[in-house]
Amino acid sequence: MQSSNSRPSQRANNQLRNVEIIRHYTKHAEGSVLVKFGDTHVLCTASVEEKVPGFLKGKGQGWVTAEYGMLPRSTGSRMDREAAKGKQSGRTQEIQRLIGRSLRAIIDLEKLGERSIHMDCDVIQADGGTRTASITGAYVALHDAISTLLKNGKLTTSPLKQGVAAISVGVYKGTPVLDLDYIEDSDCDTDMNVVMTADGGFVEIQGTAEGEPFSRDAMNAMLDLAAHGIKQLVIKQNEVLSV
Amino acid sequence: MQSSNSRPSQRANNQLRNVEIIRHYTKHAEGSVLVKFGDTHVLCTASVEEKVPGFLKGKGQGWVTAEYGMLPRSTGSRMDREAAKGKQSGRTQEIQRLIGRSLRAIIDLEKLGERSIHMDCDVIQADGGTRTASITGAYVALHDAISTLLKNGKLTTSPLKQGVAAISVGVYKGTPVLDLDYIEDSDCDTDMNVVMTADGGFVEIQGTAEGEPFSRDAMNAMLDLAAHGIKQLVIKQNEVLSV
Amino acid sequence: MQSSNSRPSQRANNQLRNVEIIRHYTKHAEGSVLVKFGDTHVLCTASVEEKVPGFLKGKGQGWVTAEYGMLPRSTGSRMDREAAKGKQSGRTQEIQRLIGRSLRAIIDLEKLGERSIHMDCDVIQADGGTRTASITGAYVALHDAISTLLKNGKLTTSPLKQGVAAISVGVYKGTPVLDLDYIEDSDCDTDMNVVMTADGGFVEIQGTAEGEPFSRDAMNAMLDLAAHGIKQLVIKQNEVLSV
Amino acid sequence: MQSSNSRPSQRANNQLRNVEIIRHYTKHAEGSVLVKFGDTHVLCTASVEEKVPGFLKGKGQGWVTAEYGMLPRSTGSRMDREAAKGKQSGRTQEIQRLIGRSLRAIIDLEKLGERSIHMDCDVIQADGGTRTASITGAYVALHDAISTLLKNGKLTTSPLKQGVAAISVGVYKGTPVLDLDYIEDSDCDTDMNVVMTADGGFVEIQGTAEGEPFSRDAMNAMLDLAAHGIKQLVIKQNEVLSV
Amino acid sequence: MQSSNSRPSQRANNQLRNVEIIRHYTKHAEGSVLVKFGDTHVLCTASVEEKVPGFLKGKGQGWVTAEYGMLPRSTGSRMDREAAKGKQSGRTQEIQRLIGRSLRAIIDLEKLGERSIHMDCDVIQADGGTRTASITGAYVALHDAISTLLKNGKLTTSPLKQGVAAISVGVYKGTPVLDLDYIEDSDCDTDMNVVMTADGGFVEIQGTAEGEPFSRDAMNAMLDLAAHGIKQLVIKQNEVLSV
Amino acid sequence: MQSSNSRPSQRANNQLRNVEIIRHYTKHAEGSVLVKFGDTHVLCTASVEEKVPGFLKGKGQGWVTAEYGMLPRSTGSRMDREAAKGKQSGRTQEIQRLIGRSLRAIIDLEKLGERSIHMDCDVIQADGGTRTASITGAYVALHDAISTLLKNGKLTTSPLKQGVAAISVGVYKGTPVLDLDYIEDSDCDTDMNVVMTADGGFVEIQGTAEGEPFSRDAMNAMLDLAAHGIKQLVIKQNEVLSV
Repeated sequence: MQSSNSRPSQRANNQLRNVEIIRHYTKHAEGSVLVKFGDTHVLCTASVEEKVPGFLKGKGQGWVTAEYGMLPRSTGSRMDREAAKGKQSGRTQEIQRLIGRSLRAIIDLEKLGERSIHMDCDVIQADGGTRTASITGAYVALHDAISTLLKNGKLTTSPLKQGVAAISVGVYKGTPVLDLDYIEDSDCDTDMNVVMTADGGFVEIQGTAEGEPFSRDAMNAMLDLAAHGIKQLVIKQNEVLSV
Repeated sequence: MQSSNSRPSQRANNQLRNVEIIRHYTKHAEGSVLVKFGDTHVLCTASVEEKVPGFLKGKGQGWVTAEYGMLPRSTGSRMDREAAKGKQSGRTQEIQRLIGRSLRAIIDLEKLGERSIHMDCDVIQADGGTRTASITGAYVALHDAISTLLKNGKLTTSPLKQGVAAISVGVYKGTPVLDLDYIEDSDCDTDMNVVMTADGGFVEIQGTAEGEPFSRDAMNAMLDLAAHGIKQLVIKQNEVLSV
Repeated sequence: MQSSNSRPSQRANNQLRNVEIIRHYTKHAEGSVLVKFGDTHVLCTASVEEKVPGFLKGKGQGWVTAEYGMLPRSTGSRMDREAAKGKQSGRTQEIQRLIGRSLRAIIDLEKLGERSIHMDCDVIQADGGTRTASITGAYVALHDAISTLLKNGKLTTSPLKQGVAAISVGVYKGTPVLDLDYIEDSDCDTDMNVVMTADGGFVEIQGTAEGEPFSRDAMNAMLDLAAHGIKQLVIKQNEVLSV
Repeated sequence: MQSSNSRPSQRANNQLRNVEIIRHYTKHAEGSVLVKFGDTHVLCTASVEEKVPGFLKGKGQGWVTAEYGMLPRSTGSRMDREAAKGKQSGRTQEIQRLIGRSLRAIIDLEKLGERSIHMDCDVIQADGGTRTASITGAYVALHDAISTLLKNGKLTTSPLKQGVAAISVGVYKGTPVLDLDYIEDSDCDTDMNVVMTADGGFVEIQGTAEGEPFSRDAMNAMLDLAAHGIKQLVIKQNEVLSV
Repeated sequence: MQSSNSRPSQRANNQLRNVEIIRHYTKHAEGSVLVKFGDTHVLCTASVEEKVPGFLKGKGQGWVTAEYGMLPRSTGSRMDREAAKGKQSGRTQEIQRLIGRSLRAIIDLEKLGERSIHMDCDVIQADGGTRTASITGAYVALHDAISTLLKNGKLTTSPLKQGVAAISVGVYKGTPVLDLDYIEDSDCDTDMNVVMTADGGFVEIQGTAEGEPFSRDAMNAMLDLAAHGIKQLVIKQNEVLSV
Repeated sequence: MQSSNSRPSQRANNQLRNVEIIRHYTKHAEGSVLVKFGDTHVLCTASVEEKVPGFLKGKGQGWVTAEYGMLPRSTGSRMDREAAKGKQSGRTQEIQRLIGRSLRAIIDLEKLGERSIHMDCDVIQADGGTRTASITGAYVALHDAISTLLKNGKLTTSPLKQGVAAISVGVYKGTPVLDLDYIEDSDCDTDMNVVMTADGGFVEIQGTAEGEPFSRDAMNAMLDLAAHGIKQLVIKQNEVLSV
């Protein structure tokens, strides 16, 4: 068993924060999920639109895309509102592109038919790991949107190939740890976001040395932690979806 | 007693929706309030910043300003994200200017000192009346932010002069009604937003004839309803603030 | 009779500034009106376009929309040019939306047919009340544009239901006054813009407490003044249109 | 004497349109001139600001800059409003840069002192030649602004070195003509704008072959016409300034 | 023979810099030319697109347009990247409009058919005269793009009417000189860009007095120099195109 | 030895394209490098500026930042120019953020002192791998800029900690391959960009499953290839820097 005393939260190194996934959080969206990774709370809504973007017209397939935003005071000090500044930051675009790719990895776009699903991930409260919480919650919202399409007869078979979830791992004060919160994230040597399918395949790996470069060994340790964490997230997703 | 059978919600003509005001909804902001007018849910966060905008530098006074946004799928059909479009709509700007003026009407900016309070009103779920819910919730968030400043010694006396709340009134199918929900709002003849202080003074009146022009009598009836509704909102605000 | 000595302009409290409405001011537009409320001069041009915006295509109705602008040095100190800044201010959008709604209130859009009328209100010189002068002049320009359509056979009956005009009222140094000029506007307690049809119905009321909240009595006094002023503006409009 | 029958306006080939220069057209600006070249009407306002742009701070000199705009319906068919589109066209920027350079050519920026003059040229009605009318009117507005500075003691000697004016010339249906109106401009082979000082030096020459390339002879003929026209404009400017 | 000792580069007053025109510089574009005027290096790529802009649809003609850019460190001190700033400067737009007009002057757009040629002129290294180098190189790239269309059978006859080239001339320390480099350009009295066809017709003349106004004599001297320089550029263009 | 017949280029699976690194490519920048990975050509210029961005003022450290752009016709079909569109794409921002982080990983910002180095990576010709070529070339340009600072006495010791280079790896038709060109990149299952220091530490790993999720084994194979490729790039960098 791993010692946990290096972590500000007293968590074990391989321990997730409390994860909560609340379905049907708002009433209008075809899928609406509030996901909590500890104090990180993200609202994921899936909106179905019966048309595809221009570049896909007439190609017999659908599209899934994502947008991400943070409420200005979801963070410790208030950030400028992107709508008021008139543009989305590079970070925002990076994250929403990542979410979109992660969801497209587990859906058969031809089976989806000529329609789009817009996933909106809006951070209500941030404490590290907003992009991994977003992907984990977005899968459930996507699943609910597909269920809606199946229920109302727009689809007869589900285009979902399997589940997807994401978690961050990193090296904090020399030790690989799972699911970094904001304090750890601000002070870690390495930060890696891992997106995996329910059956354990890699969808995305994004690792960054914040301070010192990291070794192959550290990476292997981080990937082990990530696999461990994602396995639990998948169980959680399936639990809430089975209700 | 007024007959209620003309309203889709079966409410009496002078009846508010269920109003709920939840303080300390998120953890970072100096004031954080989730306000619900029925199915309209708005998160109001008040952020204190120890500086003023350029045009007030060195004038010995503070500033209160507001921004407003709707999550893309807070509504029945998804709206484009303003941050992605690169600009705020005229409606958004109109509403955030209204919220800002309403709050500045009840605060003594000199007593506030050279600091700013940014009020962010973000609509999580919309069902009509988002701007009046915003103002009503924002007052409580502002009050909490001021309490924080008093508690930590940055202020010794409160710059708040009194409370403020807002409600919509309108003429729906020929009858003046209080607190229109989305169905009523989409189909009313006249729509009026009224902002009043706790002691019954008018701060803002914005009435628009959506269909036929309205008469002085209709306006008087609407103002009576508004005064009636705001009285109850003020009681609600004081209740939650007294806990 | 009311005493006038409280007003910097020596006008009686219920006295409009000199109003002048000059038709056919420029040669290209289907309607082109220079309206003067004292030193406030606004050029209103109505442009007919034989198509409707996307959201109205194929719906068998027309559209009337408005844009508003101030020349950079129409005011006491030069304002930045909005075209150079790359965006219209919240105030500009608020005003142009108000003008548009006011004109749509008195026109039958189905009778207009599938065409648009663009109203441009450009302030050449400002001295308070630019939005009310704009609406008052815009009605005459709209009337001229409709006459052009009738003359050239594009329309056989006028879609205009009646006239519309607007005036500001306020409480200046404790006294309700009509048609505030810039000096009064900068220093008033309450500022209210009222838009009414020629037959006395309300189209828009927008009242704002600049300093102290205002009472129901003050509002009633202001509305009386507004009705009085608009009656005279309607007479003026009809006079110039009868030539 | 030249035959005039080739010109739609029946003007002689070397004949200007009626030129009118009205000073003090609006009341706020330090210089305010409405200039008319026939049906082309431009309002030129000069605004003095007691500071210089960042790149000139502390360099002991002033700055003169210009902005240009067309009211949306100054033209035969309505143009989109640049403020609403969120950017100025290439043509707009080209013209305002030309006006600025032309004015800076005849002013001693060191003698002006550390202050700026903003020239706004706004086209009220267009019929060809808006940029040359702008420059010609702007000089008079600039002169008035300088006179204001001299009168109120901010300057003791005038920084103006001499006058400046501008005119268009072109080859229309094979014949060189002076001061093209819109009909000629739309259908000419060559279009040249010439800016000259009062004593006959060239400040700017911008010639464009719209159809066939033009010869050195044509250019010489056009420059003769331009010099002839500008001489008359300078007389006109001096006339109105001597009142 | 003219004395050259006034020029920092020791060139004779009527002497071009070394001119080099390298075809097929990059592999994707239908025409790709690196043009060097001394240390000024511009990459000109011509891209064929089988459609025309909206305003030309169905008119049976093609279009040629140009865009211009400078790499941020093509100059002595780094300039902000226009893509990051979110807008092109007035200078950039002026130059790309000039390049576009110059190319359209020598091509028969009806013969080109309903297709567009986009010319991109990107400055790799700048030392004065980037716009004249751009036009001179762009002609060769355009010629190559047309040859591609002829070769693959999309065109059967060339729409090119003749060649075009451009050069700058100016008055430097009192003497008219040809092809100014950056040092001369920064310190000259007059700067003139001249665009001419291969057979000596004028396409564009843009002359600006940077300091003192210039005389008709100076202009004549400059035009003589320009004609002399362009003759050599045309020879150079033909040489490289004949390979 | 690995079989190469699956690759369109006939390269061995672990074979880089021809790599060329040309220093001093343009004359103005403190570091200027043209880097070629086969047909991918990127110009990397390092510009020194003697100030730091606002958020670092007075903190006794420097900054290194990067911008990335593609010439519109660097690619097979022309892309819109980002400066003309008015914004940088998400992909562009993602890449320039990656380049910046990679360079900051190997420089001691405190030793750099209060100055900034702007790295501009502009793609002249693209054939896959533009971001890895950019980072590899940028290191050499950064090294040259530092040498300039050392030479002119602005620095006495180099703030560079070691070298950095980057390469792409992927799974193409089931086989892990090194340094994907455009054909491979468009059709691969997995695409991974790896940034490593000269001594073999990881700086960034970004792997994306384009089609099927990838396994841990595949990732290990790709990382082996990446380490192999980067070793050769580092040798190449040192070779050109030793001249």
